[in-house]
Amino acid sequence: MRARDLAAPFPTVAVDTSALEAARLLAGADLPGLVVVDPQGRPRTILAGTQVLRMAIPRYVIDDPPLARVIDEAHADRFLHDLADRTVAELLPDRPGELPVVGPDATVLEIAALMARSRTPLVAVVAGGEMIGAVTLDALLDRMLGT
Amino acid sequence: MRARDLAAPFPTVAVDTSALEAARLLAGADLPGLVVVDPQGRPRTILAGTQVLRMAIPRYVIDDPPLARVIDEAHADRFLHDLADRTVAELLPDRPGELPVVGPDATVLEIAALMARSRTPLVAVVAGGEMIGAVTLDALLDRMLGT
Repeated sequence: MRARDLAAPFPTVAVDTSALEAARLLAGADLPGLVVVDPQGRPRTILAGTQVLRMAIPRYVIDDPPLARVIDEAHADRFLHDLADRTVAELLPDRPGELPVVGPDATVLEIAALMARSRTPLVAVVAGGEMIGAVTLDALLDRMLGT
Repeated sequence: MRARDLAAPFPTVAVDTSALEAARLLAGADLPGLVVVDPQGRPRTILAGTQVLRMAIPRYVIDDPPLARVIDEAHADRFLHDLADRTVAELLPDRPGELPVVGPDATVLEIAALMARSRTPLVAVVAGGEMIGAVTLDALLDRMLGT
């Protein structure tokens, strides 16, 4: 069993996609994360769902729990609306970690170790410079455990 | 909108649950993570899906990508079978991070900030010493974005 056998179609977002649209894709399709691709369709960044949340909430709110408690709903909603004016590229982390991308011959264990290391429940499979699909943690565990 | 309104029933595992059974629950029910409870039913640890994967794969394999590549499938399967002999308690991280648990009055923004900070797409809601449910990242984003 290799990555090419496990890869399934997975929606992608472009760097110039609106951040709000990207968040809506994540939520609406119950995705475990987002694959951000460059204009050539190659994965540039893969974000776990919680990293997308980090993009939507100002850093000072994330780091200050008592502050989050006292911000009212009207102001909290404004953070979301602000996303509409920004692109995915503007919100990407400054220091991206290891890119969770594998070649078509990667083994199940290689993919699992990469997910564990990068803390991303989503790995893109690239062959010949093109993304042929992605493997989610759920799909991987289903294969490993026969669930 | 407060945590008590967002909390939905969520399966839990005990510290003495077999690690294999816990992994099967995660995979079989497509959960974003696991809530490990103490004998009184209070959340003790909450693990993101990728952290569960960390429990299933030896540390030396996670840290050494070329090694993962050369381990054959028969040996990889043995890691999984070993899980049957171990309990969840034996596999919990030595240094747990911030526990993603909130009270019933936590706001949407508080929950979102906690998920972003702890990198866990799952927050338990505890009231009067008892877990009344959990909020997943998907459920939270659906509420925030109306998806």
